[in-house]
Amino acid sequence: MMTCPDLDDLLARMSWTDKLAQLQIIWRRDEADAVGLARGGIGALFWPQSAERTNALQRAAVQESAHGIPLLIGLDVIHGQFTIFPTPLAQAASFDVAVAEADARVSAAEARSGGVNWTFSPMVDVTRDPRWGRVVEGFGEDSFLASTFGAAKVRAYQGHDLSGAGSIAACLKHFVAYGAAEAGRDYNTTDVSWRRLRETYLAPFRAGVAAGAASVMASFNSLNGTPMHAHRRLLTDVLSGEYGFEGVVVGDAEGVAQLVPHGVAKDETDAVKLSLSAGLDIVMGGSELATDGVALIESSAMDAARIDDAVMRILRLKKALGLFDNPYTDASHERSGPTPETLDRAQWAAERCVVLLKNDDALLPVSSGATRILLTGPYAASTDHLGAWVQHFGAVAGTLEDALAAEIPDATWTVSAGADFLEPSADQIAEAAALALEQDLVVIAVGEPSSLSGEASSRADIRLPGEQERLIHAIADTGVPFIVLLATGRPLVVEDWVDRAPAVLLTWHLGTRAPEAIARVVSGAVNPGGRVPMTFPRAVGQIPIHHDHENTGRPAQSGGSMAVDRWDVGLQGPNNLDDYYTSKFLDLEKGPRFAFGDGLRYTRFAVETASALPAEISVADLCAGARVTVSATVRNVGDRAGDEVVFAYLADPVASIAQPVQRLRGFTRVSMDAGAAASVSFELGGDELGFWDDENHFVVEPGELVITVTDGTDSRALRLVVTE
Amino acid sequence: MMTCPDLDDLLARMSWTDKLAQLQIIWRRDEADAVGLARGGIGALFWPQSAERTNALQRAAVQESAHGIPLLIGLDVIHGQFTIFPTPLAQAASFDVAVAEADARVSAAEARSGGVNWTFSPMVDVTRDPRWGRVVEGFGEDSFLASTFGAAKVRAYQGHDLSGAGSIAACLKHFVAYGAAEAGRDYNTTDVSWRRLRETYLAPFRAGVAAGAASVMASFNSLNGTPMHAHRRLLTDVLSGEYGFEGVVVGDAEGVAQLVPHGVAKDETDAVKLSLSAGLDIVMGGSELATDGVALIESSAMDAARIDDAVMRILRLKKALGLFDNPYTDASHERSGPTPETLDRAQWAAERCVVLLKNDDALLPVSSGATRILLTGPYAASTDHLGAWVQHFGAVAGTLEDALAAEIPDATWTVSAGADFLEPSADQIAEAAALALEQDLVVIAVGEPSSLSGEASSRADIRLPGEQERLIHAIADTGVPFIVLLATGRPLVVEDWVDRAPAVLLTWHLGTRAPEAIARVVSGAVNPGGRVPMTFPRAVGQIPIHHDHENTGRPAQSGGSMAVDRWDVGLQGPNNLDDYYTSKFLDLEKGPRFAFGDGLRYTRFAVETASALPAEISVADLCAGARVTVSATVRNVGDRAGDEVVFAYLADPVASIAQPVQRLRGFTRVSMDAGAAASVSFELGGDELGFWDDENHFVVEPGELVITVTDGTDSRALRLVVTE
Repeated sequence: MMTCPDLDDLLARMSWTDKLAQLQIIWRRDEADAVGLARGGIGALFWPQSAERTNALQRAAVQESAHGIPLLIGLDVIHGQFTIFPTPLAQAASFDVAVAEADARVSAAEARSGGVNWTFSPMVDVTRDPRWGRVVEGFGEDSFLASTFGAAKVRAYQGHDLSGAGSIAACLKHFVAYGAAEAGRDYNTTDVSWRRLRETYLAPFRAGVAAGAASVMASFNSLNGTPMHAHRRLLTDVLSGEYGFEGVVVGDAEGVAQLVPHGVAKDETDAVKLSLSAGLDIVMGGSELATDGVALIESSAMDAARIDDAVMRILRLKKALGLFDNPYTDASHERSGPTPETLDRAQWAAERCVVLLKNDDALLPVSSGATRILLTGPYAASTDHLGAWVQHFGAVAGTLEDALAAEIPDATWTVSAGADFLEPSADQIAEAAALALEQDLVVIAVGEPSSLSGEASSRADIRLPGEQERLIHAIADTGVPFIVLLATGRPLVVEDWVDRAPAVLLTWHLGTRAPEAIARVVSGAVNPGGRVPMTFPRAVGQIPIHHDHENTGRPAQSGGSMAVDRWDVGLQGPNNLDDYYTSKFLDLEKGPRFAFGDGLRYTRFAVETASALPAEISVADLCAGARVTVSATVRNVGDRAGDEVVFAYLADPVASIAQPVQRLRGFTRVSMDAGAAASVSFELGGDELGFWDDENHFVVEPGELVITVTDGTDSRALRLVVTE
Repeated sequence: MMTCPDLDDLLARMSWTDKLAQLQIIWRRDEADAVGLARGGIGALFWPQSAERTNALQRAAVQESAHGIPLLIGLDVIHGQFTIFPTPLAQAASFDVAVAEADARVSAAEARSGGVNWTFSPMVDVTRDPRWGRVVEGFGEDSFLASTFGAAKVRAYQGHDLSGAGSIAACLKHFVAYGAAEAGRDYNTTDVSWRRLRETYLAPFRAGVAAGAASVMASFNSLNGTPMHAHRRLLTDVLSGEYGFEGVVVGDAEGVAQLVPHGVAKDETDAVKLSLSAGLDIVMGGSELATDGVALIESSAMDAARIDDAVMRILRLKKALGLFDNPYTDASHERSGPTPETLDRAQWAAERCVVLLKNDDALLPVSSGATRILLTGPYAASTDHLGAWVQHFGAVAGTLEDALAAEIPDATWTVSAGADFLEPSADQIAEAAALALEQDLVVIAVGEPSSLSGEASSRADIRLPGEQERLIHAIADTGVPFIVLLATGRPLVVEDWVDRAPAVLLTWHLGTRAPEAIARVVSGAVNPGGRVPMTFPRAVGQIPIHHDHENTGRPAQSGGSMAVDRWDVGLQGPNNLDDYYTSKFLDLEKGPRFAFGDGLRYTRFAVETASALPAEISVADLCAGARVTVSATVRNVGDRAGDEVVFAYLADPVASIAQPVQRLRGFTRVSMDAGAAASVSFELGGDELGFWDDENHFVVEPGELVITVTDGTDSRALRLVVTE
């Protein structure tokens, strides 16, 4: 149709105004306005939702704008456009990157078929604060896990060729440390040392850039006093300079204009100049640069080379997407909803994300002998399974009520609402408790509605909302065995009820096929294999809490206790190292309620052998690229086929910088029949064995390291010597 | 008695072992052991508690050790040795450094009279997390406040001459960022940017060093991966290098040996080497360096100049304390308890720390017409008023029961326990509620016992412990007017009851004369003038929250609300700047329950005039030392004499680094008769108007600043132009 112009020639022909126009993505509710923007030469537009509309916009851009440059067309396809997959946090619980890849492939195909060529996903923010509603959109608390999932998702969105029909440009977000928002309050200030920035928050971006991410989004937060939309050291020196990122840096919605309330720009013009100078390439929202922009930014006020660099980054992405060759999508192949195949993929993914948190009396799976079952709780008849960040065109889910009855048809099902999500529910609770007395089993489907997680959805109290905890207690009081199905967008505080619940399945928000997936885990058709990707604290007051913490100088052996008697510090002397003077809370047991990596199965596994080869390696060899292979054999020693997640953790008990008590350096999920064994292996090189100091140096040190291969219950520790 | 030797000569005569022995402070329960250590030439010993014992130890050191070097004798005199003053956090609530000075002068005199010449106070850690039990020992959340109080206390402890009978060496602690312990869990890891380190945590140390502090204590926490006991950049480069500190850096209890569990030293020898090399001068606790130490550290393993430097710092301090001239104390002047004068000072101090949080119906002060008053709550008959960090020899307090009856004798007082501090109290609550029905007024004395704050006393839940909240509700249910007296070592979450309480006095732990001071505020003999020095959050989930936060890019106008309806982000477009997408919690109102600076009086004040001179000043002049004088006139417009705290806050709406919405740059407390006016003024120079960036540069920028002079309710904003 067209032939791709020489981009340098194209750039040379563009006026200052033409260039500024490229540096922006805007949303317009009115189609005529959007076409007008395209005609004016704007670089990118938002979610027009149909091939017909995107083609119209591309036509205006290509045929009517000054230089005929095609459009980037963006849409927030976070965990599905039509076919909704589990939320990203739930996907992380699968500990299986194939789940994220399945989502990304289906999402890319659905989006690109309607002319969308850019998604603002994956979010690779490491999240250690469950108050923050946006934890639902990321891959949990661990930087290695987020790096692995993020990179996999980037590759799957983008395919091997960005111009393919099933490919869209990915966007790593939010650069950087957005997840460190103070108090877990969305958009709040962050303050992070360079060491932690490197080790925890930057690592997934580094991995995602290495995976070829086409774009990166700047985050809303200020970091150590500088709003990220104006953070030159990170946007330019680290991202482009150190990581060699050649793609597009996009702002978040109105993030540039928000430099004014942040307090670093006096007006929007100033804000745009600051952002573009710092290394931002595309302004999201704001006044129109191409029209207001001429007045806003004089060419004399900006470094022309920086603007040319930004424009070229955008033009290169359009070229890679094949838009210069063919900006249009074939409307005859447009998808407008799920297909049986995409629904199968979504259900498969959902099944792999379920986590069995408790199963004290082996109540799960539900034997077909259970003839009378009460299903109660606000999720019993709810279709609120899609989770945060789903557009109105996402395919709705069914209900647990229907799915469970279909999956376990020989049971006699009774359904009672039990409680509202948020409202007082005394009558419903009483009714459910009365019904429970006539049952063999009760399934309580409780949770946090999806409205309570996602952007701008921080909660200071992360217990089950409404009177749902009272429903659980009322059922527990009946003495009838019960199972809790716990849907949530974030780790919750379950301390007030979980000891009374014999069985708990963590079901997240699993997407369009959530009810069917959950039903198959309940029935035992699927053996749950997910693990907790983000710590469940005992109390909000325990936050932040995460698995890869430092040991401190005074680690506690147990939690504290409240007492009125005063400790006479004047006479304590050397005793102050005893249990009292340790790092703990007076009112909490030590450690979290559910830790990173927790999760039971309907079968059991053993780590039979483990080895590291070589067991000794030099710093020089590591820096030259040598790697240690950690191998292990794991056996299913139970009586049912199932999946096992095997983790490789690193400890470095004596280092120049205090290291975490454990660092995740590898994980893999394997399926085994009853009695069968599987071999797993992990490759560890300098990147995995070294660490960052606080002066921006990456260090690989000699020393004795400990590598632990574990499935969470059965462990083998290996000694690895790193020599000078 | 002796003549001070030439310290260089002395050092030259010392063996490696002699030197190592000086670098340690140890505690021994057995006196013979302590004398043995003194005889062996140890540098410092802990709290022998009497002139007789300290003289015996000094005699052993001076007459029997190899070089006759006298001892440093340390004791944790935190807010009083015999005469107990309000806790430091309570002192900060006075916003009157004279309160801290009174404590320090009395403490120094009491301690030095028994031969103690070194106290481990003041704690100048900025504290923003009320879960941390040690907030009680500091001056609250504001760096300027902590700097001012810390410097004042240093000067008062040390007097104009350290060798004076009423002087002891002060110790700034804990260097640095101990208050940033993650999750407020004592001893926990800290992670802080250099910008925040400079602006918030280091500033009080800089001020304290400038005030002449003789010593600084390293903190237990690791900071950005390096335990502070091994943090050369801070202990040496910043403290000695930048601040010019020539005093002694002491470790905290076993803090050196704890480099092993921290994960940066392989054994205690390694730990000692690391610490001393990093800039620590005195090891607190641990194995004996002088005996075990010879084996532990070979001279070849250490930089001899560093060891000599450490020894010289110690010898210089001993010289400054006059110990070479006279190491003994005159036992005939030893104090063993409070005097009438010290008790008067303590009561005066306590009266100034009380904060009136609420007084809705002017229930306070209690009119003499109230004839029947019920006093209830666990603090009614308790003597637990001294607060954390008091030795067993601190003078005990009386009870509120006695003090109130004495202060308001014309009332008919009934006393009922009402509730235990920690235990279930249903019967007591019922009894108190029944008694309340026969009264004109109820005074409920509730609080956190002092055992729940202080070192190693972190709480995840900071509500009133036990069933005290139920007691308040039971009294509220009676409809009888009531006043709450709230004793605490930390800001508490009062959300569940405070709306029902018409009047609340925050009484902290006020020391030996607490009951009398509280009684005089209740009666109106004293008009309360204290202010909140550390934010009271609405919920634990709101932590960290403090007054000098940044604005963020999306500041909220109000709190959020919980709802099940999903927001369709796909269609939101530009609307995402509306109220929904702001920095808030879905389940909390905006802002704290009681903010920094809050506090009512029995009278009212107005800020009548305010001015800044000059109103325009250049960066060059500021850097050359020029200052702006902010002056204001404040009038007592009520009908009762009282004290007013006037604050000067700075805002810098457009800066190269996002500035806090307000920064405290001055405060003063003034007394005025009814109708009278007072003039106040503040001096602001480059130090006050500039700020730190994240690259360790202090910046004074041109711009338009706003200075707000306020008493918390009545404000005047002044524009200050800083020119190039």
